[in-house]
Order: sequence, then structure tokens, then C-alpha cells
Amino acid sequence: MQKAPHWVIFALQMKKGMFRSHNCGELRLSHQGKQVVLSGWIQASRDFGGMTFIDLRDRYGITQLVFNIDDDQALCEEARKLGREDVVKISGKVRERSNKNPNRSTGDIEIEVDTLQVLNKSKVPPFTIEDDTDGGDDLRMKYRYLDIRRNPVKESLIFRSKLALETRSYLNSEGFVEIETPVLIKSTPEGARDFIVPSRMNPGQFYALPQSPQTFKQILMVAGMDKYFQIVKCFRDEDLRADRQPEFTQIDCEMSFVTREDILNTFEGLTKHLFKSLKNIELEDFPRMSYDEAIRLYGSDKPDTRFEMQFVELNEVVQGHGFSVFDNAELVVGICAQGQAGRYSNKDIKKLTEWMQRPQIGAKGLIYVKFEKDGTIRSSIGKFFDDEALKKWGEKMGATTGDMLFILAGETEKTRKQLNELRLEMGRRMNLTRPDDFKPLWVLDFPLLEWDEESERFHAMHHPFTSPKKEDQEKMLSGDHETMKSLRADAYDLVINGAEIGGGSIRIHDRSLQSRNFDLLGFTKEEAEEQFGFLLGAFEYGAPPHGGIAFGFDRLCAVMNGQSSIRDYIAFPKNNMGKDMMIDAPAHIDKDQLDELNLELKLTE
Amino acid sequence: MQKAPHWVIFALQMKKGMFRSHNCGELRLSHQGKQVVLSGWIQASRDFGGMTFIDLRDRYGITQLVFNIDDDQALCEEARKLGREDVVKISGKVRERSNKNPNRSTGDIEIEVDTLQVLNKSKVPPFTIEDDTDGGDDLRMKYRYLDIRRNPVKESLIFRSKLALETRSYLNSEGFVEIETPVLIKSTPEGARDFIVPSRMNPGQFYALPQSPQTFKQILMVAGMDKYFQIVKCFRDEDLRADRQPEFTQIDCEMSFVTREDILNTFEGLTKHLFKSLKNIELEDFPRMSYDEAIRLYGSDKPDTRFEMQFVELNEVVQGHGFSVFDNAELVVGICAQGQAGRYSNKDIKKLTEWMQRPQIGAKGLIYVKFEKDGTIRSSIGKFFDDEALKKWGEKMGATTGDMLFILAGETEKTRKQLNELRLEMGRRMNLTRPDDFKPLWVLDFPLLEWDEESERFHAMHHPFTSPKKEDQEKMLSGDHETMKSLRADAYDLVINGAEIGGGSIRIHDRSLQSRNFDLLGFTKEEAEEQFGFLLGAFEYGAPPHGGIAFGFDRLCAVMNGQSSIRDYIAFPKNNMGKDMMIDAPAHIDKDQLDELNLELKLTE
Repeated sequence: MQKAPHWVIFALQMKKGMFRSHNCGELRLSHQGKQVVLSGWIQASRDFGGMTFIDLRDRYGITQLVFNIDDDQALCEEARKLGREDVVKISGKVRERSNKNPNRSTGDIEIEVDTLQVLNKSKVPPFTIEDDTDGGDDLRMKYRYLDIRRNPVKESLIFRSKLALETRSYLNSEGFVEIETPVLIKSTPEGARDFIVPSRMNPGQFYALPQSPQTFKQILMVAGMDKYFQIVKCFRDEDLRADRQPEFTQIDCEMSFVTREDILNTFEGLTKHLFKSLKNIELEDFPRMSYDEAIRLYGSDKPDTRFEMQFVELNEVVQGHGFSVFDNAELVVGICAQGQAGRYSNKDIKKLTEWMQRPQIGAKGLIYVKFEKDGTIRSSIGKFFDDEALKKWGEKMGATTGDMLFILAGETEKTRKQLNELRLEMGRRMNLTRPDDFKPLWVLDFPLLEWDEESERFHAMHHPFTSPKKEDQEKMLSGDHETMKSLRADAYDLVINGAEIGGGSIRIHDRSLQSRNFDLLGFTKEEAEEQFGFLLGAFEYGAPPHGGIAFGFDRLCAVMNGQSSIRDYIAFPKNNMGKDMMIDAPAHIDKDQLDELNLELKLTE
Repeated sequence: MQKAPHWVIFALQMKKGMFRSHNCGELRLSHQGKQVVLSGWIQASRDFGGMTFIDLRDRYGITQLVFNIDDDQALCEEARKLGREDVVKISGKVRERSNKNPNRSTGDIEIEVDTLQVLNKSKVPPFTIEDDTDGGDDLRMKYRYLDIRRNPVKESLIFRSKLALETRSYLNSEGFVEIETPVLIKSTPEGARDFIVPSRMNPGQFYALPQSPQTFKQILMVAGMDKYFQIVKCFRDEDLRADRQPEFTQIDCEMSFVTREDILNTFEGLTKHLFKSLKNIELEDFPRMSYDEAIRLYGSDKPDTRFEMQFVELNEVVQGHGFSVFDNAELVVGICAQGQAGRYSNKDIKKLTEWMQRPQIGAKGLIYVKFEKDGTIRSSIGKFFDDEALKKWGEKMGATTGDMLFILAGETEKTRKQLNELRLEMGRRMNLTRPDDFKPLWVLDFPLLEWDEESERFHAMHHPFTSPKKEDQEKMLSGDHETMKSLRADAYDLVINGAEIGGGSIRIHDRSLQSRNFDLLGFTKEEAEEQFGFLLGAFEYGAPPHGGIAFGFDRLCAVMNGQSSIRDYIAFPKNNMGKDMMIDAPAHIDKDQLDELNLELKLTE
């Protein structure tokens, strides 16, 4: 035991003002006997007779400190005064623990402390800094700096950082150039609402924050940059639903001289790389499905394909037998819930029916057929159809003994949406939506235009720059109104586990086709010119064929971790009123600031 | 010569709709005989008798295409109709060039074209797409998509992308986590002007765009994230000088449990890594200089140390000899321009003096002493001082035969600024500021506070969160007004070749010290609480000692390439009126949009 050198080293460290020789997650048995300096937060403290044990925490882990009252009474008493979340710097010697903790990377050792310096005191935190905290959402947001100290939030932010790094490394290796597009751009009323920014230097004029860098990335293709990407903040002034944020992040990409195939392959490659490098999961090749098929089989353009339970249309077999609910329905469609016949009592069915009848879903009723284990068939419409008929339905839907059918009837679009909700609910109840099971899917060939009855005009299903599929371009230039409804866009979405991760399209690169699209979307020539004149102009100077995609980065983080909420992947999220609870923004500003901007508040009572 | 297979391959490629098998920069002699598909822009076209040569360009390079009228007259005639910047797809066979071009990576080969498809026509561009263009600034900005096709701009954007990638890779390997901080924050009138964003959901309230993520990164340190970085857009609503942009990008960093030494080492390491990986330049260890020394020796806190020519103060030797200009001056200070004596005629000196007397510099006059090669000494103040005296000055300033002294006299601060301008001008004239010579320098120990005579208050030299040096903290808490002026901040700047690359400081992490600083800066308790209450609050829950730095990313790009303007490192820069000339932003918006935001324009005539 050489006492002297360890004090010499320590004195040198103190003189240099060094705060730590190691972090709280890295000491191992191999460091035994070493003199170290650590800094961190007091996680917990325990007194056992003459011994005080303290857990010292930093980003990297927790290290146990020991104070022995027989060795240094003053020091031990000082240690006993420390409270949760105080910040301290200690020096001491690494020794083997008698009572090892296999759940902690530093669990084999502890530090025999010889000096202690309090760097900053902490008030008692308003909630516990534990994986499961006692803090409610509002409190956690107000004290976000304490919330982030908790492992689940901290790890989410680190995951996000790694995901960004791997995304960049992959796209770079594929020849993409990351290019920053401007944040102060021009307002385009098409689409969602813009956030606007008054210009002081140009009185009466305004910038807008981008909802996406769409036109800029297309301009970069015209500029010959060939392969562009950016991990970029975008902004939408929408009434916020739960889990929407006014500012959100996209992996935004565009490529020149490509077909749909090139883009799907590149971004399937990226997605596989991200799952492999961050989760060590090897994804198989992504299946593909047309929009029409997705709607027909799942009632949704973002089906959760972790489980089958596909829709089966029954019009053919059920109609014309005198049951008016079916006979009058545009669509009769059902799903088969395997092995569920024995699990649904009449009471359970009543509750499920009520769940389907809530205004959020709006089903009129729910028809069931149970193929009981004992061979009997029970159904809510047994009065109208005999066992023979019901068996025929069962066959068509692939049902066997023990299975249960749920059937809805009504107007096609509504009925599909309702059955989609039921299918997802059954998937959850039957434990078919495991968070560690990942099922990606490309959905292809979306409609180009949606007819809006209310405003009596077409809307772009994706956005106004999306190209119709090659075979539909002639139709688009010359076709009539009805033809327009049938146009397919060269657009695609990536769906994972029922969540839309991203979407994109081959773009129009021809001025006349783009002008025609603006026409169809109800732009006057002047409006199109004022808002997108620069892009139409650019198309006249050698625009290459191009296309792209954007992934929702916040959503990707959450989905990859089987989470439904994006909040903990955002360091400082806003609440449903768009408020940052910690800094208390938005806030009132000085009248001087408004005056300088030539603006006046006009608040109504 | 097997004709058949090459058509088969081509047919397959066409069927797949593939736009290219290779890019325009990758074909070499080793590809000879290969059938390829290329897409790109027509750079140039030359007809020689029966042959037409076309340079096809994309991001990766230029490949020569050949059309022979004897082989395929129709094709060759079609090729002759192509104009500059038309976009085409061709297929053909790689063959060796008889007339090789060693300046081009593809210069050994050419493509014997067999099919040609025009993908998009181009109007005649308003300026030439060459390294040296004939386009003026305004035209280049309006047609930025054409400007970016030019090599210098394209390469600048690619350089920027690589610089970002290497920055991230280095900081990641050092344990930094990239965390996105919000863009919609709260306005803080301290510092430069904020851009503001009205909140529709919270009538009468406003967000502001961040001038820097300063408080958020400090909050992340309180949150225990330990090492944070972000390459992040920041915003300042300033009257734009040349080469300032309303939105700009920072490499923003913060670290916990660190001293100044840790931060300087980390970011010196980053800077060395960036020069090594992007420029293959090994920088030596960065010298350090105190702010006081920089001001005394160079008259600037960002000296260009590519050349010496340091200031020499002459009060001691020149005062008290009856020359009132010197005797009445607070400071007499000069520089020695080596070997320049023979180069400055009386007319040259007169012109230089006039240059110094321009209002931008404002010198009253310029005194010179020439030590001519023949041993004679000439000076504008030869009447007042004899050769003996002038020789003594020369010795003090290290002058030898052939050198020339320039001397200014006057009020200390102004005189130093004027001599700084002269020194830099002489450095340029004497070719001492080579763009490929890189001389980094840390400037340390800035004053904490600046007294502003006009507003009769202190301003923070760095920002209000900067810590005084440890030895000055007591003085700051208890000292009088005069003492405050002498406080040194634990702040540092990185300067390269006279450009400020970035700066940072150790921060205050103690509530009482931070409150005292707000006091000194003229904040009332209420103002401090309203604007920065969340940070003061956070300091009470275990804030660790921390510090950080931010590099100007646009500036770093320019300086590393020996450029003085940042414009070509920004894909879509704004002009001096904050306007984007391409998209024509800012612009007027609909009255509906203003109504929704409870705002009214109040324009004065």
C-alpha cells in the first residue's frame, strides 16, 4: 500500500482543476487500486451503521461511493448531509465490492472516497429521477431538465442522435450530398397553414417557415446536385392533435435520373441499415402493395401487416337472401378472428359493439358468427341465415372451428374504415402487435387527385409536384373530369407496423404537365406564377427527371422502439396548445418590437 | 465486333427505364468496349466535318460523346440540333480517344453513341455555365439553379456537406450527442433583434427564432447530457452588412465538468481533424494569446497571424522632444514593413495616407520613416527628429536597411484600430496573406463587461451567461463599479487568418452569480425572471459546472478555402436586403392569414 503517490496524483489533479479522471460508467475490476476523480449527481444514499453508501450518477452510469466513519468521521458526516441530485466531485480509490451488483456495469467495484467537494446543491426535485417516475406530463415538461436525467428519456435522445448519424453515414456512402435549404421562405397557402415571419427590412412583407423543403430540393435537382438529402426541421401551424408537433424533423431526399425502382431500393437499403446498425435486426425484403389493394384488404393505406386478418368481401354470398341490411349495403365485408369464438360472451360482444358504435368509429352495428369448438354455430343473424349459409361464409373467410367472424355492412368507404379500426383492435387484443416485431411495407400507386365535394375541386393526394404514372400522363393532359379521378400517381409510402414512416413520388419535370396540374388543382395562371413561378421557370432550363422521399424522423425513432408517442424523442417538445412549458413560449412581446415590424395587435374579446 | 449482344443489353436497359449505367465522371480506359447508358446536360458541342463531339456533364464530371455522320446520319443530325443545357439520355459504346485530354478524369475515352433521347429541352441560359461566368451577382442569385451547376459553387456545397459529416463523425467519436433544440422559442430583447413568429393558437403571443441555442444547451447540461453538439440554423434580424445572412449555421457545443483547458483541447482537436481530413493539412498546436496582448500587438481581437509586423509602442522614445503631435498623443505606435523603403515613392505614400484618412478608417495622418538601401533615412518628420533619433526608433522596431516604418499617434483605442487596418493592408500588399497558409490562434481572457457611455450601462462582451474567471468571482459579487470594468471572463475565441471562427466560455452555473450578472447588465429582478427564470430555476436543481463553444459554420467553410465570402457555401443565400431573389421572398400575404393571427398592418407612408 503506497499512500504517498496517490496523494501526489490527486494533488496534481486538483491543481489542474480537473473534474474527473473517469466517468461514472466506466470503472471495472481492472481499475482496482487506482486513484480516481469522479463528478456527478447523488442518485441515492444509504447509511449502514458506520458506513455510508452513495450512488453517484452521470450520463454514462452509476458508481457506488463508500464513506467509512472509522476512517474519516468528518468526511462521512459531510457525505450524510448530501441530498438527492446534489452535484459533487470526489476523489478516492477503486476497490472490489464484497456485495457485487451484476445489473450495473460498474457493479463489481466501489470507490473508497478520500475527498468530497460539493459543486452545486439541489433543491428536492418535484418528481423522482427514476425510470418510472411519479411526475405527471405537465410537471415533466416544465422541469424537462430533470425529466431528461431519467434513463428512458436520456436513452431516447441518444438513440435519436445515433439514428441521425447512421442515416447520414449511409446516405453519404450512397453519394448523397447534405445541403441546407433556407428556413425563411415564402408563404404558399396550398396545403397546411404556414407559420409566418414579418420582415422588418421589407415592411408589409413576410417570410414563411417551410412545411417541407419540397421546391428547394427539386430546384437542387435542376441545379444538377443529383442526390440530395437533409435532416431538416419543418413547420406546420395546425391545430395540434395528440402527438403532433408544430416543428418536426424529416429525413428529406431527392434523386435525379431515377425511376421509382431506384428510389425504393435506396430507401429500403437505408431502412435495413438503420434497423441493423441500431437494433441488430435484419429486415427481409419489403413487400409491396398497391393503394387499391391496401384499401381493399385492410381498409387503410397504412396497414399493420404484423398480422393477417385481411378483409374478405362477402357481397356475392350474402346478398339476395332477403336480409335487408346486407341487400341494401354497398359493401358487406368481414374479418376472421382465429380462436376467438370461445372468448367472447354475449356481454363481451355487446361491449365490443358499443365500442364500434362510438362516434369516433360510427358503426351502426356489428355482426358476428362464432364457430364453436363443439361444432355449433352462433350468430347475431342466425334468424336470417341457416348454418349451411354461415358455413359457406366461414369457408370463404378461411375460418375453422374455434374462429369467430366479424362482419360490417354499409357504404364502402365508411365500412372499410370501421372494419380497419376493429381489425387493429382485435390485433391488439389477440397480442398480434408485438412491439419488437417489425413489418415494413411499400404502398404504391396512390391516386393522383382527390375530388373534394365540398369545395368542388381536386386536391393533390400527395402534393402538386407529384407526377402521374407514365401511362397516365397523356390522359392527364387531355382527359375529361371523370378520367382525372382515375389517374394514378407515381407515389409511394413506407409503412412499418401500421405507422406511416414516409412517402414520396416521382416528380413532374415538364413545365406543361406541371401547369396542367396547377390548373386541375384550381390555381389561376397568375396564382401559379406568383407562388411557383421560379419552379416553372427552372423547368425550362434543363430539368432532369427526378423523384424523392421524406421520412418522418421523430416517428421513425418512436416506431423503431415500439413506442406510439414521439414526445420522448424530442428534447423540448411542445404541448397540444403549441406551448413550451419550460421556457413559457409563446409569450407577449414589447410594443416596440411590433412597431418596428409595422404590425398592430387586433385582439377580439 | 459483336453487334448483337450490345443491342440486347441496351434493349433490356431501356425496358427497365434505366437512365444511366454510369455517371459522367467514372468511365476509364478499362471500360473500353462496354455498352453504357449516360444521362446529363449538354455542356458544349463541336462539329468537325462528318463528326460531332458533345461534352455531356453531370455532377460527377464530363464525358465526350461522338456522333459520326457516316455511321448514322439521322442520329448525327439530331445531335447537331442539341443546345447548351439540354438534358439527354444516350447509349453507346466506350472507346479509346485518339486525342486524349489529361485534364479530365474521363479524358482517355469517348462514347460512340447509338441512341439519343432528349429528356428535356433548355432555353439559352442567361449566363454561361463555366467556372468563370459572365453572370453578375443578381442574375446568378435569381437563377441560382443554373449558378449551382457551375463547378466552383457545386464544389463549395459538396465541401460544406463533407465538413458537416467530418464534424459529426469527430464529435460523435468524442462522446458528443447531437440534440435538436427548438426553433420556435421565446423572444429575449437582449442582444441582436429577434425574428418573431405570431402564434395563431395563442392570440397576442409570439414565438421567436433562436439567435443561438445558448440557454437550451445549458439546460441540456443541467439535464445531465454531458456532451452536446448540434449543427444548427440560427437567426438574427440585423441590418445586413455585406456577407452577413439573416439565417446562418453554427457548430454548437457544450460540455459538463470541464475547465477551459478541456474545451480548447477538444475543439483544437476538431479543427485539426477537419483540416487534415478535408485539406490534408496537418496544423501545429495552436498558439494562445490574451485579449490584452492581441489588442496591444495587433490592435484587434482577431489578429491575422500569418505574418508578424507586430505593433511597437513608441511613447517612451518619441515623447518629450517637442513634437506636439507625439507629445499630446495618448499612444504613439508603429509597424515595420520589411523591405518596403524602396517601394514607396512620395506619390505612393500620399495615396496610402489618403487611404488611411478615408472616413472608414479616419486616421489624421500617417508618419513614415524609410531606411533606404544607401544608408540615408527619409521621414515625413525629419524636421523634428534627427537621424540619431530615427535610428533609435528603427532599432526598437527591429528595422534594418531597406525597411520602412509607419507610425500613428492619437487616442489609444482609435489609433490601434487604424494601425490594424494599415497592418492588414500592408500584409496584403506584401503578399503575406497567402490563402493556402493557415494560422489558427486562441484569444483568451476577454473582458467580462463593456461599459457603454451612451446607455450608461454594462453590456456583456460575450453574453450574459459567461462566467468571470475564477479569481474574479469574489470581486464580481462584492466589487464597486470600477472593479467591474477590470473583470476578466473565462471566454475564448478561435481565430484563423484574422477571421473569427468561433467563441465560447465557461458558463455561470450558480444562481446567485447569474443573478448578480443580470443586475450588472441592468435587468430588473422581474425582467430577469420573466426572460430567464427557467434557467435560474434550473440552476437550483443540481447544475454542473459547464462550458462550451460555437463555430460559425459558413465562415469556417469559407476560411478553409481561403475565401472571404460565405455566399457560395450557402445553397440559397439572401441578399443585403434579406431577400431571396430566386423565390422572391419575403412577400405579401393574404389578409386572411393576418386576420387569423390577430394582426393588422400599420404601414407608414
